[in-house]
Amino acid sequence: MSQYWTNIVHQLDPYVPGEQPQGMQYIKLNTNENPYPPSPVVSKALESFGIETLRSYPDPESTDLTHTLASYHGLESNQVFVGNGSDEVLAHSFQTFFKHSKPLLFPDISYSFYPVYCGLYQIDFKKIALDDNFCVTLEEYAQPSGGIIIPNPNAPTGIALGLDSIETILKNTNSVVIIDEAYVSFGTESAVRLINLYPNLLVVQTLSKSRSLAGLRVGYALGHADLIKGLKRVKNSFNSYPIDSLASAIAIASIGDEAYFQQCSDQVVASRNWLTKALVALNFNVLPSSSNFLFVEHQNVLALTLYSELRKRGILVRHFKAKRIDNRLRISIGTDEECQALVSALKALVG
Amino acid sequence: MSQYWTNIVHQLDPYVPGEQPQGMQYIKLNTNENPYPPSPVVSKALESFGIETLRSYPDPESTDLTHTLASYHGLESNQVFVGNGSDEVLAHSFQTFFKHSKPLLFPDISYSFYPVYCGLYQIDFKKIALDDNFCVTLEEYAQPSGGIIIPNPNAPTGIALGLDSIETILKNTNSVVIIDEAYVSFGTESAVRLINLYPNLLVVQTLSKSRSLAGLRVGYALGHADLIKGLKRVKNSFNSYPIDSLASAIAIASIGDEAYFQQCSDQVVASRNWLTKALVALNFNVLPSSSNFLFVEHQNVLALTLYSELRKRGILVRHFKAKRIDNRLRISIGTDEECQALVSALKALVG
Repeated sequence: MSQYWTNIVHQLDPYVPGEQPQGMQYIKLNTNENPYPPSPVVSKALESFGIETLRSYPDPESTDLTHTLASYHGLESNQVFVGNGSDEVLAHSFQTFFKHSKPLLFPDISYSFYPVYCGLYQIDFKKIALDDNFCVTLEEYAQPSGGIIIPNPNAPTGIALGLDSIETILKNTNSVVIIDEAYVSFGTESAVRLINLYPNLLVVQTLSKSRSLAGLRVGYALGHADLIKGLKRVKNSFNSYPIDSLASAIAIASIGDEAYFQQCSDQVVASRNWLTKALVALNFNVLPSSSNFLFVEHQNVLALTLYSELRKRGILVRHFKAKRIDNRLRISIGTDEECQALVSALKALVG
Repeated sequence: MSQYWTNIVHQLDPYVPGEQPQGMQYIKLNTNENPYPPSPVVSKALESFGIETLRSYPDPESTDLTHTLASYHGLESNQVFVGNGSDEVLAHSFQTFFKHSKPLLFPDISYSFYPVYCGLYQIDFKKIALDDNFCVTLEEYAQPSGGIIIPNPNAPTGIALGLDSIETILKNTNSVVIIDEAYVSFGTESAVRLINLYPNLLVVQTLSKSRSLAGLRVGYALGHADLIKGLKRVKNSFNSYPIDSLASAIAIASIGDEAYFQQCSDQVVASRNWLTKALVALNFNVLPSSSNFLFVEHQNVLALTLYSELRKRGILVRHFKAKRIDNRLRISIGTDEECQALVSALKALVG
């Protein structure tokens, strides 16, 4: 607390990201990173990057990266907005679209950064409870609102909505609907193909998980040109150059290697299916995941106990101290070796 | 304009950065970049960077970079806040410190991003006129305010305040005072050594100009631990990981090469002195600059004419369409060859 802070700073309840231990080696299954390294083309992009480029400011419009993403998704460049990770893109989106007299709607169990953004921008919000199976209750999003944001697949549940459900939500509102597709590339159908049908749809994606580039900080939003124009107005009132020249070059290279991307995504899905079966065999309740993590509850042993015991054994998973989910663990899909090490450790703990 | 934007988005008047032409070759003296490439240690840092690091999220606290900066400036780590360029650091600072019932004060001629941030965060502000010699009028900053921000040296004038003047301002206010030292390393004394004396002083610096790393986007703030804590609350409510792993590694390497930094800064100062004399000889009025640019007015030829004619000849300089300065040009100090090319072109235009 400080006399120098503005009122809002005192009231903030900042987001707490999953632990990134520095130094000590862990099997890190706590922050949903891709277990495989970035594409080999990233090395080449790094090798051929001339450092004298760094002397100059980057292109403030990130033209090349924007074109690359537009072309990849079959959209126009004016339908693409890039940012310093999808967290920054989401922050700007909340400020651009969600401050209205009616509250923003999002699931009671979803990305815990959403209420934090609401605090930062003083946005009124209303949490809509997931049903008893942790599924989104579509009909509740038809109420008048200042906007809607839903992760698809949802986090930390991992459960996906079909495009028909997304369309139901879009048809029943006049507000902006953001579909947060951070985890879309592990078996969920993207809402990108609805963009030209719904001028109020914004789809947010990231290279963090899908392209193994969490350390690079590149995220983006796709939507109607008018939505993108609003985002650019806010971005250009905040920071002219959010994407550095190196990040842009690496992102462009990575997006060009579709085969490697598919191969890694497929491997994560295969490991997820294996791990699901192994955990069910150990008496875990496992929600049906369409993402690169599982959300699990053991039938006898408390989640917090498992979290602590795994940590002692050098395995990090994520636990959220929140209503309805405080006896669950979110476990990121690792390599097969990491998944096997997890199962061995859990066998000893719950067996 | 769009029905989906929030009110504030309609009202914004976004910042327009200096042109970054893509493709065509110009002598770029319009965005105050350092004319010399980054330190050779940056190449080494890039070569030894393992791309598998990018798979994981960066350290959200940027611990290593923060330690490096603290040690470099003789401060504690809890007195350092890093961000994605000093523009992001400034944006967070405006939100953290400046929204109060009384207006923020800054010079009428200064960094044109300040009123833009005020628009973004709905901060009331009052511009304090520079005197007829474009100098800061110290006594005016003693009035009750919601905060004070002054670039030192000022931009686009290039004129520096001494530390005694900064102390006068600090002693006469209870608000947060930000000294924006983007251009400090070309002959201005830094206010960093006042930090442990004034708990309301925040000093903002950047690697963009001083370290030839505009393309990397690393800036930082130095101040009392309580100010830094407030900034972190806002940052952690906006984006957990603003500094990517590569940017952090390169910044740390660059800060380690003091000799190269000094050598480039000295060379820029020498070129500035040469260019000043050459322009005075061509009947330009040149403000006394302590930065890496000159702010000049010709006695006979209009600034806009010179701007356009230079552009045709492949030389970009900056012109601001603003009261009191619309007949001046801001000219970044280039290499000696670039400065000579500029002088030759101007000779033909004004001779």
